[in-house]
Amino acid sequence: MSFSTEQKFWNLLKEQSSYEEAIGLMAWDMRTKAPKKGVENRSEVIGVLSQKVHEIQTCNEIKLYIDELKKTASDPKLIAALREAEETYHRTNKIPTQLYKEFVTLQTTAESKWAEAKENNDFESFQPYLEELVRYNREFAELWGYEDHIYDALLHNYEPGVTVKQLDQVFPKVRDELAALLTKIQESEVSPDPAILQGHFPKHLQEAFSEEILKRMSYDFDAGRLDETIHPFAIGLNTNDVRVTTKYDERDFRTAVFGTIHEGGHALYEQNIDPDLSFTPLATGTSMGIHESQSLFWENFIARSREFWENHYSLFQSHAPDRFKQVSFDDFFLAVNEVKPSLIRIEADELTYCLHIMVRYELEKALINGEIEVKQLPELWNEKMKTYLGVVPDSDSTGVLQDIHWAGGDFGYFPSYALGYMYAAQFDSAMRKDVNVSAAVRSGDFQLIKNWLSNRIHQYGKMKKPLDILEEVTGEGLNPNDLVNYLRNKYKHIYRF
Amino acid sequence: MSFSTEQKFWNLLKEQSSYEEAIGLMAWDMRTKAPKKGVENRSEVIGVLSQKVHEIQTCNEIKLYIDELKKTASDPKLIAALREAEETYHRTNKIPTQLYKEFVTLQTTAESKWAEAKENNDFESFQPYLEELVRYNREFAELWGYEDHIYDALLHNYEPGVTVKQLDQVFPKVRDELAALLTKIQESEVSPDPAILQGHFPKHLQEAFSEEILKRMSYDFDAGRLDETIHPFAIGLNTNDVRVTTKYDERDFRTAVFGTIHEGGHALYEQNIDPDLSFTPLATGTSMGIHESQSLFWENFIARSREFWENHYSLFQSHAPDRFKQVSFDDFFLAVNEVKPSLIRIEADELTYCLHIMVRYELEKALINGEIEVKQLPELWNEKMKTYLGVVPDSDSTGVLQDIHWAGGDFGYFPSYALGYMYAAQFDSAMRKDVNVSAAVRSGDFQLIKNWLSNRIHQYGKMKKPLDILEEVTGEGLNPNDLVNYLRNKYKHIYRF
Repeated sequence: MSFSTEQKFWNLLKEQSSYEEAIGLMAWDMRTKAPKKGVENRSEVIGVLSQKVHEIQTCNEIKLYIDELKKTASDPKLIAALREAEETYHRTNKIPTQLYKEFVTLQTTAESKWAEAKENNDFESFQPYLEELVRYNREFAELWGYEDHIYDALLHNYEPGVTVKQLDQVFPKVRDELAALLTKIQESEVSPDPAILQGHFPKHLQEAFSEEILKRMSYDFDAGRLDETIHPFAIGLNTNDVRVTTKYDERDFRTAVFGTIHEGGHALYEQNIDPDLSFTPLATGTSMGIHESQSLFWENFIARSREFWENHYSLFQSHAPDRFKQVSFDDFFLAVNEVKPSLIRIEADELTYCLHIMVRYELEKALINGEIEVKQLPELWNEKMKTYLGVVPDSDSTGVLQDIHWAGGDFGYFPSYALGYMYAAQFDSAMRKDVNVSAAVRSGDFQLIKNWLSNRIHQYGKMKKPLDILEEVTGEGLNPNDLVNYLRNKYKHIYRF
Repeated sequence: MSFSTEQKFWNLLKEQSSYEEAIGLMAWDMRTKAPKKGVENRSEVIGVLSQKVHEIQTCNEIKLYIDELKKTASDPKLIAALREAEETYHRTNKIPTQLYKEFVTLQTTAESKWAEAKENNDFESFQPYLEELVRYNREFAELWGYEDHIYDALLHNYEPGVTVKQLDQVFPKVRDELAALLTKIQESEVSPDPAILQGHFPKHLQEAFSEEILKRMSYDFDAGRLDETIHPFAIGLNTNDVRVTTKYDERDFRTAVFGTIHEGGHALYEQNIDPDLSFTPLATGTSMGIHESQSLFWENFIARSREFWENHYSLFQSHAPDRFKQVSFDDFFLAVNEVKPSLIRIEADELTYCLHIMVRYELEKALINGEIEVKQLPELWNEKMKTYLGVVPDSDSTGVLQDIHWAGGDFGYFPSYALGYMYAAQFDSAMRKDVNVSAAVRSGDFQLIKNWLSNRIHQYGKMKKPLDILEEVTGEGLNPNDLVNYLRNKYKHIYRF
């Protein structure tokens, strides 16, 4: 039996995708179910399969197929698959194997040094490792290449097509407008009382509520599962097996409710990718930022809206301690939308969250550009926190050391979180031209919303690049106004300014 | 970096073993947790990884390594790994790829034809497929080769080293002695009342009881899990991740209790293999029969013994409906040891079980030998059931069509079940020379028993062949007397003959 070049190309991608699905299941298993003693062996197995993925991505064979097929390809799926495979081939091959191995070793060491440093509030002990990580990232960026800014080469890993130039046109506006909104909120006489949200929330009731909301979001339980974990995530193994995980805090229902809806938003993306893209690199979300737009859209634009709770508060009450029967809807809604500057990014409300990202973006860009040095980070971090959020960490542990990203060698990742907010707001504005979102949310029927997202975004997987999707769906490029307007309109009502 | 031939050999085996671990996890997942819509894609992924295993097993490279290393190998682990890899290489390469593909296609079709035929009690519709399966098995056997009997070549797949000649020396004795015992039991005036075992057994209590027993057996929950499934199994992903599954029937506690202990016996074997054998083909049980000896030992020799229930009946009562407080120990013990000929193998008691196997062994051996034809099976089946068990199926669905094995193309497999009983009885006799088993079981402390099995059997994995282990542990070869004596002594007391 002899295969055409195109068939051989698809076969290689299928083999790669099969390893990735197996790795995905092993990763899910390790984070949900796996017995602890088996983890060491399992990690080695993941290592072996990851090596196979790497071999396919960088082999001469795939380069030959790509070069031959590119000449005549006309089918959009083939063209997109060739584009993705070629880009991966080039970027991966540009990093010498030895250099990459050194970097992986450094990552592992740096993560454990970071954990110690965070524990002991000792930035200095971590500083040399972070300096090395910055150095490797700069070296990778030079090898990958860029047009304007060295940092663009790193951004490309998470948000292909987005550049410093673009970010610097929109992020300062987001930053300044949100900081101004925050000031107004802090001057307001309205003061939410989060203490009313406290209570004992039995796990099984939280689980039932989470499942019910996922079902209403059109999450397909025949093509997924909901499990418990420590650090929640969603994972698409294939379009018909997309799993959500969540965490139940029996003292704070918000962790599971908003967390499940957030991960559910990621999962809806992966469940609704065109199955025809299966077994290719196209069968996943197109970028970190677009993925985040889907989770944030459901978590904030839907599940923190007045309409959502108008419909769901009674369902929530039936899954909460009796005392919630005495908590009025208005007090409850106000409390779950409290805006309050805080030190920790992952605990931030939807308004201040982007300000945390701005601190990180500005610092890591300057680091990679060589404008600042690692040793200046703690001081600069605290200055920016004071300027944008009005709070100053009392230790580096709750300041510059709080996130694992830099310790893992990830630079260029943070902007995707803020881009996710901006994309979500732009999609929300576009959707409201087609769909009566308020009425749909109030009625608890999310089908129209989910279909709108699936038709315009989900189904394409990686067929389209993030900014192309944005342009096609909203008719424009990155625009900070939708996010700023959404937040202003929402919090103007809540905080009455 | 350049590797020695030995290192290259181990690397290939590690790659194979990594695929196998990933396949194992995917199989476990499909049978316990996986969403139904994802199964189709997952099956393709398993297909891709299985193909990689096959490629390694049959590649020229591994043959070159084996041939070179064989010349000088002196380390026992290397020698055993070379022996296993070489045997797999030869047996797999002897079957032409095209022939094997035809067989796999036939298997799939035959299994669904069998399911229909069983449903409709229509042997004739299945007959042509079974004829083909026999034909392929005969062809494979000829390709693999054999010394005395063609059926030996098939036996080798499940019980390497065991031959028709050996089986025919022991099985008739087992068959006749058990049939004679059965007659005595049926003549006895003692009559157990299984109706007293009925009740409603809530799942969570069965689960708690199952977990407790597994813990007492020294099953390590940090290196395993207990989950629910439809057709229970145990699976060793690696020696530190060996999972048990069970089924909870709320009307009949015996399914979960004896099922969990049975699978727990399999799991103890896999958990206690020397970790130094990890990532080689030696890191699993040495044969179907030796594996079955471990599960049957725990299920029958331990968990159906008087001593076991003397210790555990009160624990059981606390996990059972209140009414069990009125059921006396003696009545309970008698009921769980009822011997009663029945039509269905998987529902058989420990005494009649082997008689079911004899029916199948004699028929499949004659089929492969060409002494009988497929179309004669229903009649011959019923005759043998009448002769050995005294019962005759009222339909082929509860007769010759009951098991999936032949429909899956598996011939040579059934004897391992009876060998498992015989091995277990021989191990039990040997153990009693070293350990006061009755006292240990009565005290509920199984550590001595588990250690005895681990030291003599488990740790070696596939380092030793089944009959070598038997010889080393018991000082003799296959011997039916231990099984016959065990059953006679046990049921003589129970049925007072």
